[in-house]
Amino acid sequence: MTERRYDPTADEWVTFATHRQDRTYLPSADGCPLCPARPGRAPTEVASPAFQVVVFDNRFPAFAPAPPPPDVEPSPLFAVRPAFGRCEVVVYSDDHATAFADLPTARIRMIVDVWADRVRTLGATPGISYVMPFENRGEAIGVTLTHPHGQIYGYPEVPPRPARELRAAQAHLARTGRCVHCDVVAAERAGRADGPAGGPRIVLETETVIAFVPFWARFPYEVHVVPVAHRPSLPDLDDAERDDLAEVLRRVTHGYDRLFGFRLPYVMAAHARPTDETQDWDPVSHLHVEFAPPHRTAEKLKYLAGSELAGGAFVTDVAPERAAARLRGLMR
Amino acid sequence: MTERRYDPTADEWVTFATHRQDRTYLPSADGCPLCPARPGRAPTEVASPAFQVVVFDNRFPAFAPAPPPPDVEPSPLFAVRPAFGRCEVVVYSDDHATAFADLPTARIRMIVDVWADRVRTLGATPGISYVMPFENRGEAIGVTLTHPHGQIYGYPEVPPRPARELRAAQAHLARTGRCVHCDVVAAERAGRADGPAGGPRIVLETETVIAFVPFWARFPYEVHVVPVAHRPSLPDLDDAERDDLAEVLRRVTHGYDRLFGFRLPYVMAAHARPTDETQDWDPVSHLHVEFAPPHRTAEKLKYLAGSELAGGAFVTDVAPERAAARLRGLMR
Repeated sequence: MTERRYDPTADEWVTFATHRQDRTYLPSADGCPLCPARPGRAPTEVASPAFQVVVFDNRFPAFAPAPPPPDVEPSPLFAVRPAFGRCEVVVYSDDHATAFADLPTARIRMIVDVWADRVRTLGATPGISYVMPFENRGEAIGVTLTHPHGQIYGYPEVPPRPARELRAAQAHLARTGRCVHCDVVAAERAGRADGPAGGPRIVLETETVIAFVPFWARFPYEVHVVPVAHRPSLPDLDDAERDDLAEVLRRVTHGYDRLFGFRLPYVMAAHARPTDETQDWDPVSHLHVEFAPPHRTAEKLKYLAGSELAGGAFVTDVAPERAAARLRGLMR
Repeated sequence: MTERRYDPTADEWVTFATHRQDRTYLPSADGCPLCPARPGRAPTEVASPAFQVVVFDNRFPAFAPAPPPPDVEPSPLFAVRPAFGRCEVVVYSDDHATAFADLPTARIRMIVDVWADRVRTLGATPGISYVMPFENRGEAIGVTLTHPHGQIYGYPEVPPRPARELRAAQAHLARTGRCVHCDVVAAERAGRADGPAGGPRIVLETETVIAFVPFWARFPYEVHVVPVAHRPSLPDLDDAERDDLAEVLRRVTHGYDRLFGFRLPYVMAAHARPTDETQDWDPVSHLHVEFAPPHRTAEKLKYLAGSELAGGAFVTDVAPERAAARLRGLMR
């Protein structure tokens, strides 16, 4: 069963992909489907004996280019759609044991270029409205393959969280005439010395890219990485910005791994301009890469429970300024 | 630091309560703060030597009746508010080793009455806009105290998830003239034999209360428990409905524990009418108790990762009709 079903009580789509229940689950290095194929071993997803970065369709996709017809008949109340979309895998390295954080900046720059290329290509596909590159890292976040890799989803509509952000940006634009992310970046930079928000939250910055713990961090060690200039999406970044983004992403992830002395699990995701053509999204879209690490201490996780899951209301235990102070020294 | 900070990029409030970082964490039964006090032992939250159900203020609250002033100065971009609200604990039993699922129906009926009473009382408090009784059960969901208990949060505004539901209900009402939950209940009941939605999702029903796996279940074994009649909130239930609700909640939780042969972790939460007076919420509010168990198999959890967390777009591995078929036999 592969289909999308509409929730009329919350105005959102849920995707069902029951074949994913059987997806490969934490195989040993010997059985890793993302390693280069080797003579005498079972074939893998990558035929080359060595590679730098490869992208291919996810073998257990939530969304597919030619999805099967839905199992159930739609009704006026219960709408159903085929699970159209794209799910791609981005393998970062042919070294099974490395991690995004340990890649050289040049390799991460190549990954940034791959993201930009896939955002442009998938975004130009009819029916794809939003392209989101992301990485789930660590078993605490549910990773089923440990080989360093990320994913790119091409959604058939703007997903609920980015849609919420776009509505907020539209409201801010209507009120102030400015991009809310541009305002946040300016406030964070102004706030370093004696800003109105009370404290330094910047953990790292270059001339074109800034990394900070947001004023409203929902996760204790949340970090946002944002181009200083108004850039709606990855393809809009120039060479210098891509270099800086790669270097900042490397330092942030590398710094994370020094926070508690182990590879910190995280969700990393790029939010950007929708790729549908229904309106001019440029003024309200400002690329930002969000890191959400689930740890609140070395031993304890922040769980999404009653207030967060049922309420959507986050309660956080760590002051953003304190988290930033702790991270700042690790990310230089 | 106890304060609420506004996220202008997503139009939502995040609550910071850094004292919670030190809250009691999985104490042994000997040190349980929710057990009755015993002579010669350290005092607990409950002075009585025995009790049925008790409610008291959470010692590590996210929201407080008289919160301290915020640490940071607000700015036009970064709004800040005191963390006003209420956080209560509902202890279900003086037996440390029991669980909601193992309580007799009469005790659960008492808990339902306690919820209704607290919804009425907290909801009448100026500044409280939404009262949500919930229970987090199991270490997989991050529970820090194993003694059977739930919580009640009195929020200063309608939290994002219920707000989204209310907007969807308003849109449905405007389009059809009807309550969306009434329509869903009717469709589920009509669909038992040969409904348009393709299959039976009801797991349990009485004359006044129905339990079903929603057509759009975001979690594999999600169950919603809903009064058949249009009842905006817990205090609106009559005696027969409260009896039925208690019995259905008992059977659902008890059935859950038979699903994989262990006490199934879950988040249980009641969504209902806001308690603010800004508008007539009755037509768009229909009480529903949602269960979100994180397990997708006995061994595997459904994690909220890139698509769910960063996108807000759920991908589910289990067909709701199959989950319902499996649960139905366990909940009779």
